[in-house]
Amino acid sequence: MNQIRIGIAGYGNLGKGVALAVAQNPDMTLAAVFTRRDPAQLTVPGNVPAVSIDEVASWQDKIDVMIICGGSATDLPEQGPALARLFNVIDSFDTHAHIPAYFAAMDAVLAASGHTGVISVGWDPGLFSLNRLYMDCVLPQGKSYTFWGKGVSQGHSDAIRRVKGVKDGKQYTIPVEAVMEEIRHGSTQDYTTRQKHLRECFVVLEDGADAQQVEHDIVTMPNYFDEYDTTVHFITEAQLNAEHSAMPHGGFVIHSGETGENHRHIMEFSLKLDSNPEFTSSVLVCYARAAYRLAQRGEAGCKTVFDIAPGLLSAQSPEALRAHLL
Amino acid sequence: MNQIRIGIAGYGNLGKGVALAVAQNPDMTLAAVFTRRDPAQLTVPGNVPAVSIDEVASWQDKIDVMIICGGSATDLPEQGPALARLFNVIDSFDTHAHIPAYFAAMDAVLAASGHTGVISVGWDPGLFSLNRLYMDCVLPQGKSYTFWGKGVSQGHSDAIRRVKGVKDGKQYTIPVEAVMEEIRHGSTQDYTTRQKHLRECFVVLEDGADAQQVEHDIVTMPNYFDEYDTTVHFITEAQLNAEHSAMPHGGFVIHSGETGENHRHIMEFSLKLDSNPEFTSSVLVCYARAAYRLAQRGEAGCKTVFDIAPGLLSAQSPEALRAHLL
Repeated sequence: MNQIRIGIAGYGNLGKGVALAVAQNPDMTLAAVFTRRDPAQLTVPGNVPAVSIDEVASWQDKIDVMIICGGSATDLPEQGPALARLFNVIDSFDTHAHIPAYFAAMDAVLAASGHTGVISVGWDPGLFSLNRLYMDCVLPQGKSYTFWGKGVSQGHSDAIRRVKGVKDGKQYTIPVEAVMEEIRHGSTQDYTTRQKHLRECFVVLEDGADAQQVEHDIVTMPNYFDEYDTTVHFITEAQLNAEHSAMPHGGFVIHSGETGENHRHIMEFSLKLDSNPEFTSSVLVCYARAAYRLAQRGEAGCKTVFDIAPGLLSAQSPEALRAHLL
Repeated sequence: MNQIRIGIAGYGNLGKGVALAVAQNPDMTLAAVFTRRDPAQLTVPGNVPAVSIDEVASWQDKIDVMIICGGSATDLPEQGPALARLFNVIDSFDTHAHIPAYFAAMDAVLAASGHTGVISVGWDPGLFSLNRLYMDCVLPQGKSYTFWGKGVSQGHSDAIRRVKGVKDGKQYTIPVEAVMEEIRHGSTQDYTTRQKHLRECFVVLEDGADAQQVEHDIVTMPNYFDEYDTTVHFITEAQLNAEHSAMPHGGFVIHSGETGENHRHIMEFSLKLDSNPEFTSSVLVCYARAAYRLAQRGEAGCKTVFDIAPGLLSAQSPEALRAHLL
């Protein structure tokens, strides 16, 4: 079997998760990990080479799909288009408000380079988006609600850590159970994001940082915190490491819709994850398989999860899927 | 706007549900209902013509997609291929064990006629199949469990009613809650279909029927009842109408998978439906939109939900979907 050769760009939590997920899929192999750091400092399991990102162009004929594991705030807007010039790419761009602009930028590069890219892959955006779409299509006379947590949000923790004066930090998103129960029992009222969730931040300050300023910068951050009730706790580095180093997460998409005369239907999708980055990586990896197949067919350009037929994600044949999963 | 012109073949509970669902989708219109009964006896809301199925061939240029609403046991194996010669078609073929053979038969006809068909659309097969597929692709080192109910199964009730000596009947599928809770808390043991569900039948006998023989014929029926613990209750027609005329249903797909070192993830999809046929119809109708689009692109042949990119199901543009649902 010709294995799909995967590259990883960026070896943080997400990149490490991709390496683990590739190992669970026998039709794939991890060809190399690319890093902005000194490659000599990286140890990737399985004797996989660690390579400076500066040398990535010389790997074009050795990588089928590059999974870009940078953050959405500053890494992906730069790395995404740069790598899409050279490779089929997958990323987990998750700043919802900026997706249309990022899509346009990526699509222009991919159309020109003749590569296939899938952006905003993961669970939200990603599997949750798919569920919002399927549910809205099936029951258009209805309303979808998304809840996140309880768990650590990588994107939001990343955003905290970029605030001036912050040494380290973790953010927990907490859904309001009582509101979920109301919806499951037929409520279709509007709930604000504020009513549906709380956000709780645990922050380690840099020496001499202004705590009040840091708190202000966090709670007013657009797209991330400004629409939520956010609590900021300042703790020591030791406390953060001891009490907040796991990365659980999860959430719920609940759709309440009506057909005929007062027939109500509740559709619900939920995730309960021990490790958010490892789960997100697992989603990225199966979309890499789809990107590879689309590229083989010559379907260049930028895609999202909405454009990918589900069968393309599976290592099994269409016949086997129809026989065993349909 | 050019509306998608829908035809309905068969005007039972499912066909009536399709008529209601089409009315919820402004980009579609119901062109006609085709029936094996006397069309003069049918009243379809909205002055939609009721037409004898014998005249269906003369409607080829007036129907974009025909939604075939017959049962899987005897109707679809005959009506499916016959209508696929003339139209783009959607059906809800739900005898899981016979899907590969039915797919092959439909694909041969559709490839020859140049039409597009999507078979086995609904919630199981259908949305549940999609979830089993997505979950298995994301967490291949894992196990999926499907539970049905509590609710009335159309397919199983239909099967009961075909048993000699049965005048009418309803079948309830009941999931075993304790087993679901074990899985949600990390159990990955094998459970037999018998351990996971009970099946409960309420049957009205024809005059002079042999109750013991009827019970035996039901509980031993292959593909439907032989793998389950099935209870049969004999009741009067008046009781059946008074206590068992609603058609609620629902169910759960739960996937438990592992990544890295002992990180467990639980993925769950569930439905709680007031009306099984109206919900199934709503799924059929959004797949009719996708079939229409695929036919426009010249993608002939037989498809399943696994072959359909989710975005094709929506009346919204790809740009709108990316901006609002991703």
